[in-house]
Amino acid sequence: MKEHKSHVRLPRRSKRSSSRPYTGSDDELPFGPSQACRCEHCAIRNRPKPTDEDNLRSTAMLRKVDAAVEKNFEETLVDLEDFVRLQSVSADLELIAESLKALCLYRDRLERMRFNIFEYNINAPRGACDTSPHPKVVFAHYFSSPSKNTILIYAYLDVAPAKFEDGWLSEPFEFYMNDDMLYGRGVCTGKGMAVCWLQAIEAWLELNDDLPINIKFIVEIMHAVGSVGLQHYLEVKREFFLDVDCIVFGNNSWINDDKPMMSCSLTGWAHFGLEMRGAAKTLEGGLAGGLVYEPMTDVCALMNSLVDNLHVLQIPAIQHMVRPTLVTEWALIESAIFSEYAYKEQFGIRRLRFELTKAELLHNRWCQSTMSMHGIEGCYSRKGSSMAMPMSVMAKFSIKLLPDQTVNLVHTHIEEFLRTKCEELKTRTNLKVHLLDSCDPSMWGLDARYSKALVRSISRVYQLEPDLSMNIVTCLPIASTFKKITAKPIILMPYAHRMDYSHVVNESIPKQCFLRNIKLCTGLVHELSLLPARCKCDVIFEYCNRQGIAEMLKPHTEKNLHRPTIFAHMRRTKSVKPRNQQPAEPDPNKRKNLRDWLCAPFRRKRMSTTK
Amino acid sequence: MKEHKSHVRLPRRSKRSSSRPYTGSDDELPFGPSQACRCEHCAIRNRPKPTDEDNLRSTAMLRKVDAAVEKNFEETLVDLEDFVRLQSVSADLELIAESLKALCLYRDRLERMRFNIFEYNINAPRGACDTSPHPKVVFAHYFSSPSKNTILIYAYLDVAPAKFEDGWLSEPFEFYMNDDMLYGRGVCTGKGMAVCWLQAIEAWLELNDDLPINIKFIVEIMHAVGSVGLQHYLEVKREFFLDVDCIVFGNNSWINDDKPMMSCSLTGWAHFGLEMRGAAKTLEGGLAGGLVYEPMTDVCALMNSLVDNLHVLQIPAIQHMVRPTLVTEWALIESAIFSEYAYKEQFGIRRLRFELTKAELLHNRWCQSTMSMHGIEGCYSRKGSSMAMPMSVMAKFSIKLLPDQTVNLVHTHIEEFLRTKCEELKTRTNLKVHLLDSCDPSMWGLDARYSKALVRSISRVYQLEPDLSMNIVTCLPIASTFKKITAKPIILMPYAHRMDYSHVVNESIPKQCFLRNIKLCTGLVHELSLLPARCKCDVIFEYCNRQGIAEMLKPHTEKNLHRPTIFAHMRRTKSVKPRNQQPAEPDPNKRKNLRDWLCAPFRRKRMSTTK
Repeated sequence: MKEHKSHVRLPRRSKRSSSRPYTGSDDELPFGPSQACRCEHCAIRNRPKPTDEDNLRSTAMLRKVDAAVEKNFEETLVDLEDFVRLQSVSADLELIAESLKALCLYRDRLERMRFNIFEYNINAPRGACDTSPHPKVVFAHYFSSPSKNTILIYAYLDVAPAKFEDGWLSEPFEFYMNDDMLYGRGVCTGKGMAVCWLQAIEAWLELNDDLPINIKFIVEIMHAVGSVGLQHYLEVKREFFLDVDCIVFGNNSWINDDKPMMSCSLTGWAHFGLEMRGAAKTLEGGLAGGLVYEPMTDVCALMNSLVDNLHVLQIPAIQHMVRPTLVTEWALIESAIFSEYAYKEQFGIRRLRFELTKAELLHNRWCQSTMSMHGIEGCYSRKGSSMAMPMSVMAKFSIKLLPDQTVNLVHTHIEEFLRTKCEELKTRTNLKVHLLDSCDPSMWGLDARYSKALVRSISRVYQLEPDLSMNIVTCLPIASTFKKITAKPIILMPYAHRMDYSHVVNESIPKQCFLRNIKLCTGLVHELSLLPARCKCDVIFEYCNRQGIAEMLKPHTEKNLHRPTIFAHMRRTKSVKPRNQQPAEPDPNKRKNLRDWLCAPFRRKRMSTTK
Repeated sequence: MKEHKSHVRLPRRSKRSSSRPYTGSDDELPFGPSQACRCEHCAIRNRPKPTDEDNLRSTAMLRKVDAAVEKNFEETLVDLEDFVRLQSVSADLELIAESLKALCLYRDRLERMRFNIFEYNINAPRGACDTSPHPKVVFAHYFSSPSKNTILIYAYLDVAPAKFEDGWLSEPFEFYMNDDMLYGRGVCTGKGMAVCWLQAIEAWLELNDDLPINIKFIVEIMHAVGSVGLQHYLEVKREFFLDVDCIVFGNNSWINDDKPMMSCSLTGWAHFGLEMRGAAKTLEGGLAGGLVYEPMTDVCALMNSLVDNLHVLQIPAIQHMVRPTLVTEWALIESAIFSEYAYKEQFGIRRLRFELTKAELLHNRWCQSTMSMHGIEGCYSRKGSSMAMPMSVMAKFSIKLLPDQTVNLVHTHIEEFLRTKCEELKTRTNLKVHLLDSCDPSMWGLDARYSKALVRSISRVYQLEPDLSMNIVTCLPIASTFKKITAKPIILMPYAHRMDYSHVVNESIPKQCFLRNIKLCTGLVHELSLLPARCKCDVIFEYCNRQGIAEMLKPHTEKNLHRPTIFAHMRRTKSVKPRNQQPAEPDPNKRKNLRDWLCAPFRRKRMSTTK
């Protein structure tokens, strides 16, 4: 724990006038009364400035928590093993039950830590007579106190398909550990990140019956298949996000082995539909062939006009909007670990674009806007052959957007270009350009308060300043979607290496790195607890008068300041069987006697998975 | 019936040596002993030449049959009404029961006429939990005598979708008749043709307990959706075709109101798959975008290179193989009835190709090879948007082939062209050209014996020589498929106008034309009965010793030469209810006592459909 001492930093405080109303921006908040709350007894408005003693006490607590994390590390690995063993491959509909098992396991762990649980069914598109269970998404909420910051953690428990035959050295769904590496499908993607958070929160609760911040969770099992159905609940359950201060995603952003890299920007996208219509309905090839102009032919011509031989988009104005890459960022890209040969080998690719230099290649991938063609709706796309001549087809292509591209401008450019080409080609079928889906790219300052909190955590854990970059953009569509719908600040926690290989075979993470990621979680909880909170009376009625777990426990903890906490006690007696008189955990939505439930013992022992 | 007299022609006889073995060609067969049959008592080999008296007797019979057809015409229209009323829309899976009703109705009529019935289930692709009944195909066989010719009639009973709202003047599925036109979905396509054959055969049977030829039927209800599943049974049930002399299709080939047009050629087709493969599996757009070359982009470029702005195939060699159109055929095309305006209006088309002159336009449609693009397999073709980058896609296009194009040569040209373009474009993804499905075009002489039989029938019914053309090619894929699989001669009976409108709204046929089509069927039966038959001992064991209905009835008919036939008798007493003691019609496959079944009365009264 020595390594931490030199890096403990106190939160910076705003020098601006405290009378300035809170604008919802990502900047530092002033201490002192918030303009938004008109409540006379607002605990948050009337909260005293934290003293140095407070800060030192909380830093000391963090050190204890981290020590507990180290002590429990063996158990953590058993936890990870439990999750890895479940073959939660979301792309395989037959394995949906395994994914649900993983979700239930995680949900039960959260529920034991006094999270309120909300489960929603995902109505993914499926066959009419498919009787397999519906996938679910879990929303969870630990409400400690209105005077604390609230973070939302996004976690997912599904993985990409994996088979031993693909070239794994061990069974992908059997957790395998050698001296310093952890192997198994999911260890450096969703499952690994989710287990880190679980351990961090459990460690906090064990040492201190309460958490220093409010935590919400969204846990899903459809991440690998585009988070089907989640967007619906993000839009419908907007009240869940009202009191959230920032959203935390784990992401794989390390680009070299030296130190973690912290991203401060997210890609956006614009999906276009290029619709050509030649007639009101599909015609029979035998009858109408040679008589009518075919939209498929025109679509191919237009799609072809968008790019040159080298697949470069022929609208320079769109590329010009992208922020130039800085010299430091070029240096970072140069240092990136990437084997062109291994990449090609893995996917069976013959040639890569820009393969002359590694930096050019990676720059094009990470720092350039690119176009992809996905398919054509309305055409004959099954196996075999058909005589049908589709008369209304829509080609789908998308452009990955980087800061400072905007959906609006790109849309205008694309539409103008296609209309001009249509004129040039004298197409006889009708063109319509649709914007099917879009999300602006986003970028936040390296000096935003959440970025700084993360930098402090990383520095404490790794004893290094992380690499910082705004122009090496992270592509994490689910984060962009959260940002678009909730407009909340985003924290991208560097978890592992860029996912060039991780998704494929021998997914692995160094043991030390995994431990540090848990400490990164505890550290982030600590750092966020130090940031000033604001009263959310402007969005939630009488927010500052709400009673959280902290308020309930207060008389209790004040009386027994040095008493071992409930959780620590339970850890020592965890071999004792749960008492029969322990009340069954009631449905959180109908919970009547909060005190009963609060004092229910926290059993750290994992639920056994079906082995 | 006067109109027929002047046109009765006796069959021509071959002047060639009768010792020449039968080669299976379409030419006239010699009378006299066949080389193929080594049977000592072969009735066919030892058959005497038909005398003039025989011919006159059979012509007189045809005249009686045609008189009966006229007399029964009102009942025929009621029959047609029964079929039109059934909404046998094969494109609508929910209406499959209606299609099956139509098929059962037809099957029962055939069974009553002593056809042997074989039913086969069509395993059309459908949803896993679809419990609707399977569509079926009916094979039927009336075997009169081994010494008679055998024809196979293809009939279908399904129709294209139709709704009153589409612009029909009457309900599409309610048969409507005004002074000289018959309206209703199906009257000038499958149902109309099928009812014509039913009436023609019933008229023959009524006047003469037996038919002058052997008739086989294939009746299906999936014609409008590409005859799904039928090809399987054509290939599996090859023994059904062994003794078939020719296959008769009704087709819509009239191109003007003046006279029927007789086609002597069928289009072929070549379906190509242009496969481009960039990597071993689909990649995620967000991760691999900008890094790899995308097959979709290359496919669009290659497809675009195949045609110019005006959608004309850029491989002149393919077009040069097509037989030139004769001056007489140009004149025929000039006389064609076709309203460009109505056509565009109907399908909501803005511009047609070659729309400067009608003749150019129709020539391009009927006499030119054309290319159509159908779709792309493996791409994202559903609604909405996707980030997936398909890495192995196959574009599908087809070329309609006309005589004298051949699949092999066209394939070679296409493959060579695409490989050259690939080199030019320097595509980095791998090209493969597949020939997915193909059928050579076919053409038969205007002086082939079956063509001549048809010309004689047409001339007798219409008092006109039909328009003949080999280069205005008929596109009837199911006929091409039969030709490809069975290699039997084809007769295309001109039934109605080219299907520019018929498939769409207000499908109709002149009443007189419908009546003449029935007479065309009876006439064709007569003409084919006059053609010399050959013994099929070379393909079917002891064929000439088989006992058909004619052999069974012979002692009976010889004794009572002037006795009214069973069928005529039944017509007079058809208001009498079927007697109870009448034996139930046994399963034709297990029929024991053939004589019992043969003498079962033939009830002409239709089965009532569910009204």
